Amino acid sequence: MSRIATVAAAQMGPIEKDEPRQSTVARMISMMRQAKERGADLIVYPELALTTFFPRYWMENEADVDAFFEKEMPSPATQPLFDEAAKLGVGFNLGYAELTEENGRIRHFNTAIIVDREGKIAGKYRKVHLPGHHEHEPWRPFQHLEKAYFEPGNLGFPVFNTMDGIMGMCICNDRRWPETYRCMGLQDVEIIMLGYNTPRHFPQAPEVDRLQDFHNHLSLQAGAYQNGCWVVGVAKAGVEDGCELIGQSVIVAPTGEIVAMTSTMGDEIIVAECDLDRAAKARKARWNWEYNREPRHYGILVDGPGRPAPADD
Amino acid sequence: MSRIATVAAAQMGPIEKDEPRQSTVARMISMMRQAKERGADLIVYPELALTTFFPRYWMENEADVDAFFEKEMPSPATQPLFDEAAKLGVGFNLGYAELTEENGRIRHFNTAIIVDREGKIAGKYRKVHLPGHHEHEPWRPFQHLEKAYFEPGNLGFPVFNTMDGIMGMCICNDRRWPETYRCMGLQDVEIIMLGYNTPRHFPQAPEVDRLQDFHNHLSLQAGAYQNGCWVVGVAKAGVEDGCELIGQSVIVAPTGEIVAMTSTMGDEIIVAECDLDRAAKARKARWNWEYNREPRHYGILVDGPGRPAPADD
Repeated sequence: MSRIATVAAAQMGPIEKDEPRQSTVARMISMMRQAKERGADLIVYPELALTTFFPRYWMENEADVDAFFEKEMPSPATQPLFDEAAKLGVGFNLGYAELTEENGRIRHFNTAIIVDREGKIAGKYRKVHLPGHHEHEPWRPFQHLEKAYFEPGNLGFPVFNTMDGIMGMCICNDRRWPETYRCMGLQDVEIIMLGYNTPRHFPQAPEVDRLQDFHNHLSLQAGAYQNGCWVVGVAKAGVEDGCELIGQSVIVAPTGEIVAMTSTMGDEIIVAECDLDRAAKARKARWNWEYNREPRHYGILVDGPGRPAPADD
Repeated sequence: MSRIATVAAAQMGPIEKDEPRQSTVARMISMMRQAKERGADLIVYPELALTTFFPRYWMENEADVDAFFEKEMPSPATQPLFDEAAKLGVGFNLGYAELTEENGRIRHFNTAIIVDREGKIAGKYRKVHLPGHHEHEPWRPFQHLEKAYFEPGNLGFPVFNTMDGIMGMCICNDRRWPETYRCMGLQDVEIIMLGYNTPRHFPQAPEVDRLQDFHNHLSLQAGAYQNGCWVVGVAKAGVEDGCELIGQSVIVAPTGEIVAMTSTMGDEIIVAECDLDRAAKARKARWNWEYNREPRHYGILVDGPGRPAPADD
C-alpha cells in the first residue's frame, strides 16, 4: 500500500490587528480548497494562524490579551474549517493561542493541533521553547512577549499515529533546537509540521538579521536530515502592523533537501508528495539508533543548563 | 585583550597504504610552516592523519591491524611534529589510531589530541560515534570496519581551556549527530575541531552519494549555529587506494556561515581569523541556555534508543 502524503504548506500573509477570525478562517478555507485541487490531503497552517502575532504588543489588561486566545476548539469561528476538512477529506495542522483550565487554574499555551481527514482532532502539542521576554522592554522597536503571555508547553514532544503516518509537531522557535527534532525522531516520526512567525529584525543581535532565512532553512534541513523525516515549515509572512515577518516556507525531504518553497510574502500554497516510507529507510541506512547512538555520553543534555521544571505543572 | 585564534585547516590528500609515517609527518610539517606564514597559530589535521584510512581493509591478523596504531604519542615518528609546533608556536589538533592498555587490557580507540603552542598535549578525545560494521561484508566495494577495529570512546565530550580559548573535538561521523555539538556547547566550547575520512560512496544508500558534500556542510553549519561556536572540519580527501574521499574542508563561524573552504582534493591549507568572543555573544543573544532550554522534556535523548553502556568501561 502506498504511503504517500500529499502535503500542502499554506503560508499566510499578514493578519491585521482588527481582522476578525471569520475573515482569517475564510482565507484558510480558500487555501484548503486550492490545496485539494492540487491533490493535497494534508495542509499545514502557520503558528497562531487565527490572529495577528499579538506578542508584539505590550498589554497590561488581561482581557485584552485573552481576546487573542481560543477558549474552545473548534469554536463557532473555527468550525467551518473543520467542516471543510471533513468535506474535502483533507487533514490539517493549525496553530492557535489556547486558553484552558487545568489543575484548577487558567492556563495559556501556544498550541498546535493535527486534525484528521474526518475533521477530528488527532493530536495536540504545546510549544515548549518560548522565545522573547517576560517584561515590557520599551527599547525594542516591537515586543516579543511570548514568555509573558504563554506558559511553556507541558506535553513534551508527542507523536501521533494518524492518517497512515507518524506525525509530530513543533512551533516556531522550537525548530532552532536540535532536541526538538530528536525527541520525535527517536519515536519514529515521519512528518514534523510547524508554523512560524519570525520577525526579520532580531533586536538582541541585529547584525544577523540578514541571516534569518538562512537560519530558518539551516535548522529545518538539519532536523530533517539528522532524523530522517519530512519537515514542513510554514510562515506567517510579510509586513504585519509595521513588523516584517520572514517567508520562504518550505517542505524538506528526509535527505535535508528543500523540495518546495514559497516565493511570495502573502497567502501561498506549495505542495509536495511525501513518501512516508522514506523516513524509515533513511533512518535504517544512516542512523540506526540502537546500533550507533551512544546515550551514555549524553547526560549533560538533560542534566546540563536549562530552565528548571516548574513545581506545579 | 584580543582573543583571535588564527586557525588553519590542513586538508590532506590521499595517503597510500605503504606510505611511511615519516613521509606523512613531513607533509604535515610542510603544511604547518605554510600555515604559520599565513599567520596561523592553530592547525587542524584530519582524522587518522598518519596513515591510509585502514578500516577499508578486512584484516584477520591482529598484528596487521595494530601496525596502523600508535603505541605512544609522541613517538619517534611523530616527535618532529611536536618539535615544529613548539618552534613555530603553533598549536595543533591531530587524529590518530590509539593503542593503549587500560583496566588491564589492550584497547583500541580512534583518537584526537590538542597540542598547545609549547608542544604539550592539552587534551584528548576518543571518537564516540563509530560508523560502519563489525564483520567482513564482501558485498561492499570497500569495507568500513571502524566498529571492528576500535572501541567507542570512553571519555565523553570534554572541553579544554587552552591557548586562551575553550576547545573541543570530535571525529568524522560524530559531526552528523547534533548531540555531539550540544554536549560541548553546554560547556561553553568556542572552537570544535574535527577531521574526517568520508567516502563519497555510501553502500547502504548509494542514492545519496550525490549529497555527501551537502550533508557534511549541513551538519557542520547547523552545529556551529545551534551552539554558537566555531567549527573547523578537515578532510582527508581524494582517491586513496581506489576509494574516493570527499573534500571541501571548511571553517564555519558561529553564525553557521562558511568563512573558508578548500577547493582541491589534495594537501591544502585554508586560514581564518576566529574571534573566540563571538561564541559567548552568539550564545547570549540567541540561546541563553538557562533562560530558554527545557531539559525536563528531553529525557528520551538519554533514555531512548541507543547502544547500551558496556559493562567494563
